[in-house]
Amino acid sequence: MVPAESHIGRGFQKHVMSGVQKAMILLMEAYFKYTRREGKKYTLTKGELKELLQKELGDFIANSKDPKVIDKIMNDLDSNKDGQVDFTEYVALLGAVTITCRDFFNGTKAN
Amino acid sequence: MVPAESHIGRGFQKHVMSGVQKAMILLMEAYFKYTRREGKKYTLTKGELKELLQKELGDFIANSKDPKVIDKIMNDLDSNKDGQVDFTEYVALLGAVTITCRDFFNGTKAN
Repeated sequence: MVPAESHIGRGFQKHVMSGVQKAMILLMEAYFKYTRREGKKYTLTKGELKELLQKELGDFIANSKDPKVIDKIMNDLDSNKDGQVDFTEYVALLGAVTITCRDFFNGTKAN
Repeated sequence: MVPAESHIGRGFQKHVMSGVQKAMILLMEAYFKYTRREGKKYTLTKGELKELLQKELGDFIANSKDPKVIDKIMNDLDSNKDGQVDFTEYVALLGAVTITCRDFFNGTKAN
């Protein structure tokens, strides 16, 4: 099985990618960048998740006063309690962060 | 209230944005690009959603054999049945599309 990330962009490159398509590629590339460091190739261990959060979302993690923020995120994310975060759980996290970010920029919860 | 999209990027521009941060900005920018066309400023009407899907995810929509695909997406998305798709519902859609896309590139559902 050819690793997804090696031909992710190619699937879209036949034409100019839209903003949403670029975002999807960026999210997949970021995920695969960290899943290969240790443990299973296609899931994130706690260590890989921590590195991803610190490097990709450093501001959010750094601004959090809670030293256990990553443990809590891992605990919330790892819905099937296998000690791994899979792609679906990762997308759920980034969806939540994106919504939080939109609310932050919006000041209030826009209707 | 200053429209979120006018200062979305600025919130991150103090430093080099990570891939995930860029993706989040792209997703927000795409959303706000279409929400302002008709109806409420911060939600998508069915017409706006249709335009977003066709322009941002044309391949997915074009490849669908089902002429009612957009009606079905709208119906699934509009969880509170207000005829509008809000940012949270939009993020849920793109999360599902990203996961489908990852599975497509991966050939099988990677564990």
